[in-house]
Amino acid sequence: MSDVRPVFVVVGVGSGGGTGAATARLFAKEGYSVALIARSLDRVTKLEDEIKLAGGQAHGFPVSSYSYSDVTKVFQQIKQHSWPSNPKAEIRAALWNASGENWGHFLNITEEKINDTVQSDIIGPFAFSREAILAFQANTIDSLGRRGTLLFTGATASLRGNVTTSAFAAGKFAVRALSQSLAKEFGKQNIHVAQVIIDGGILTDYGTERRPAGEAPEAYITNEDVRLDPNSIAKTYLYLTNQDRSAWTWELDLRPAHEKW
Amino acid sequence: MSDVRPVFVVVGVGSGGGTGAATARLFAKEGYSVALIARSLDRVTKLEDEIKLAGGQAHGFPVSSYSYSDVTKVFQQIKQHSWPSNPKAEIRAALWNASGENWGHFLNITEEKINDTVQSDIIGPFAFSREAILAFQANTIDSLGRRGTLLFTGATASLRGNVTTSAFAAGKFAVRALSQSLAKEFGKQNIHVAQVIIDGGILTDYGTERRPAGEAPEAYITNEDVRLDPNSIAKTYLYLTNQDRSAWTWELDLRPAHEKW
Amino acid sequence: MSDVRPVFVVVGVGSGGGTGAATARLFAKEGYSVALIARSLDRVTKLEDEIKLAGGQAHGFPVSSYSYSDVTKVFQQIKQHSWPSNPKAEIRAALWNASGENWGHFLNITEEKINDTVQSDIIGPFAFSREAILAFQANTIDSLGRRGTLLFTGATASLRGNVTTSAFAAGKFAVRALSQSLAKEFGKQNIHVAQVIIDGGILTDYGTERRPAGEAPEAYITNEDVRLDPNSIAKTYLYLTNQDRSAWTWELDLRPAHEKW
Amino acid sequence: MSDVRPVFVVVGVGSGGGTGAATARLFAKEGYSVALIARSLDRVTKLEDEIKLAGGQAHGFPVSSYSYSDVTKVFQQIKQHSWPSNPKAEIRAALWNASGENWGHFLNITEEKINDTVQSDIIGPFAFSREAILAFQANTIDSLGRRGTLLFTGATASLRGNVTTSAFAAGKFAVRALSQSLAKEFGKQNIHVAQVIIDGGILTDYGTERRPAGEAPEAYITNEDVRLDPNSIAKTYLYLTNQDRSAWTWELDLRPAHEKW
Repeated sequence: MSDVRPVFVVVGVGSGGGTGAATARLFAKEGYSVALIARSLDRVTKLEDEIKLAGGQAHGFPVSSYSYSDVTKVFQQIKQHSWPSNPKAEIRAALWNASGENWGHFLNITEEKINDTVQSDIIGPFAFSREAILAFQANTIDSLGRRGTLLFTGATASLRGNVTTSAFAAGKFAVRALSQSLAKEFGKQNIHVAQVIIDGGILTDYGTERRPAGEAPEAYITNEDVRLDPNSIAKTYLYLTNQDRSAWTWELDLRPAHEKW
Repeated sequence: MSDVRPVFVVVGVGSGGGTGAATARLFAKEGYSVALIARSLDRVTKLEDEIKLAGGQAHGFPVSSYSYSDVTKVFQQIKQHSWPSNPKAEIRAALWNASGENWGHFLNITEEKINDTVQSDIIGPFAFSREAILAFQANTIDSLGRRGTLLFTGATASLRGNVTTSAFAAGKFAVRALSQSLAKEFGKQNIHVAQVIIDGGILTDYGTERRPAGEAPEAYITNEDVRLDPNSIAKTYLYLTNQDRSAWTWELDLRPAHEKW
Repeated sequence: MSDVRPVFVVVGVGSGGGTGAATARLFAKEGYSVALIARSLDRVTKLEDEIKLAGGQAHGFPVSSYSYSDVTKVFQQIKQHSWPSNPKAEIRAALWNASGENWGHFLNITEEKINDTVQSDIIGPFAFSREAILAFQANTIDSLGRRGTLLFTGATASLRGNVTTSAFAAGKFAVRALSQSLAKEFGKQNIHVAQVIIDGGILTDYGTERRPAGEAPEAYITNEDVRLDPNSIAKTYLYLTNQDRSAWTWELDLRPAHEKW
Repeated sequence: MSDVRPVFVVVGVGSGGGTGAATARLFAKEGYSVALIARSLDRVTKLEDEIKLAGGQAHGFPVSSYSYSDVTKVFQQIKQHSWPSNPKAEIRAALWNASGENWGHFLNITEEKINDTVQSDIIGPFAFSREAILAFQANTIDSLGRRGTLLFTGATASLRGNVTTSAFAAGKFAVRALSQSLAKEFGKQNIHVAQVIIDGGILTDYGTERRPAGEAPEAYITNEDVRLDPNSIAKTYLYLTNQDRSAWTWELDLRPAHEKW
């Protein structure tokens, strides 16, 4: 780990128990300065404190929404932030992990829910990608052949719509189109764009669309074969970030060993 | 052709020379009362006049935008419109043919262009689908086993993103997710949802992303093997609308015989 | 219907109650001389008689296997057959509807079953396609812009493998690759190649992988919303054969209105 | 690295410069006893010697074909082989990397070429998978939650057919169907099945379908951004083999940073 810690920007650190937070922790451990974005001050502060306590570098950037201007503004704050071990605030990796989690039968999808999906899954990611690409373009190509790595969290709903996912899938399909377009356009500039299709319930997701509501049974918590561990997903993001330039992945799927699919 | 002419609602009748207009003409000829929606009063009036002159029934409904409320409002006007041969204004078919045609390299995709794509390809289609589904649910099942048919125009960009299609593909992917979700949810209610992937240049498209800008060469105009004819696409929509209930299509692709793909 | 009846070649006429036979009947009614290929003399004779009795032209060509040489030989017999209303035996359409129906858990897929799948889904279709393409290349382009139409019957298993479809899906995936390659290569020569994804149980299929074994319940037989009718599939093949040259389909899916998918 | 070295079986070690050989070397370095299968005695012997010289354990198993019986037999030899550091010859990983490389315009695809594709891409992989699955089922679940990992090498042609890939794509589509079916069926038994889509020219491939024939230009050899390095692909296979049980990948794509796709 060199003394200069490149910045990793992550959007959507949720309750601290999910994919975004796990990835933030792992990248901090691996020597990144981690910029945490979420729509809750409490959350980013709590995670920032936790990472610092563990010896990592982190800073929280709460936003009030994922609107185009809010996302653009917060990314520019991150660029101007004075990072202890990264005077130039060189941003080398970024993950859009937020999502409008608007499931439900079509006639229950209100205008408000669609607007939320649009903001979290389209407007926000477009603004975020623009800032990330611009930041990466300013970087030199490093020893692994990269100017930067831009990551997106996908889902089963990135690949198919279903009876309760008209809104959720519309958002996830759009992110997939964006990530593929970016991968094709910016690979030539040594900017790596990749996305991960999460095809199963995540440990922290119990009670969401994928799983019956209510408390998770003991087996769900303890049995690693039946649900995804956010730390395992985080390792995948790290792996993607460190792939050889001669063999970059755009998309991979992840599911627990015993998942029925 | 019975005396009662069910209503066919079509959004996006463009310049009168494209897919929406051709489909409107064909459905009018087949006995539908056609409700024409576009963001230009001139266009809808001109097409309305043309269809009436040819003995069909049509009425234009200009809208100022494809916002949720504008689309909802115009659909409700259509429901309340007094159609000469359809006193109950029974809506049996609907086509979303509008699209934010925002191509270009990613860094040229401005916030305004994304907002336009979001409105034309996501917000508008969600509002439109809601009104169409609600209208269809109020219908009886007809002799062909249908309560109604909801159609969407897709594109190559519905299936993959590319270097100049981050926005266009994001919109088209989202529509595809919506149409698949609706097909799965409402098939049980005898509502048929289908979409057509247009994989090639349309006769009227010369000068768009798919073709070099400038005037179309003679061959492009006269050679039916190298570009799609809007009338051929219209026939496909009519075919889909009349499929037997035991064999409904969700998605099909269309391209000219000589297309390289 | 002109006096000259172009030949339509169909492989896999099953028990006479399925897709192949229904398509043969419909094409005969539409003015084609129908060449019937199956691995059973009884079946082809029975269907030939039935079609003739109804005023159509048909001739049965039993084969002992779908090996490369058997398929090649039978196709050449068809080319040399003396058709009453088609002295030149001009072949204008062809459908590969046979399939090695080898479902089952992977460890129950024996070498014999794989060999059967390979023959019915790969070797046979390659030999058949070769003969069909050569026959079409010898034709003039007709008024609809076609030299010939080559059709394939696909299935859900054309798009994804599952726990009991390792062999079946391997065969169906291979056919899909073949049909897509042919569509891309021979479109330029005005030869239309298309395939239909059957995503549901067909009326005659009761007792196969898709449906519980045993007798079909009354509802399955009478309710057109819950299973595909071979006659509806046949209409789709006819539609594809007659599409305008400016808008050809390579692939479409078919399922009953109420299918859960 | 424990003293017991589990066996890794790899089929298709080519000229020693490709993906199979690179993966064999890497797995040997990581502590696997490597069983090398190829249709050339010279090749397997040369690679066996090289790996041993580097301190690894390897043994060559030449086969005369990838027929069902030849593949079955050679796998059983591997099971009975006396490995120096693995008395029980416990097989923990396997890679099918062979392929019938039969490109060309459809009418140039002879019966012989189709038969070769069928053997290398379908018959062989089915026989190989059977032996691998049976071997894995006999294993205990290890600390990472695995009984074994079965890998397949895919290609662009796994996802789409094209004008010169009717045979090649048919084979690769079939392998993809097989690998997906196996992944779904045997995940529950803690057997991980994965495949890698190689979407670009590999360093050693110059002169194949993907690249103009002739000598590779200097840039192709030295520029890691424009072609895949077999060693990078090998790392991906190792990564897949070591994924956490809570987050297994079935499929990922790989291409060089600058690839146009």
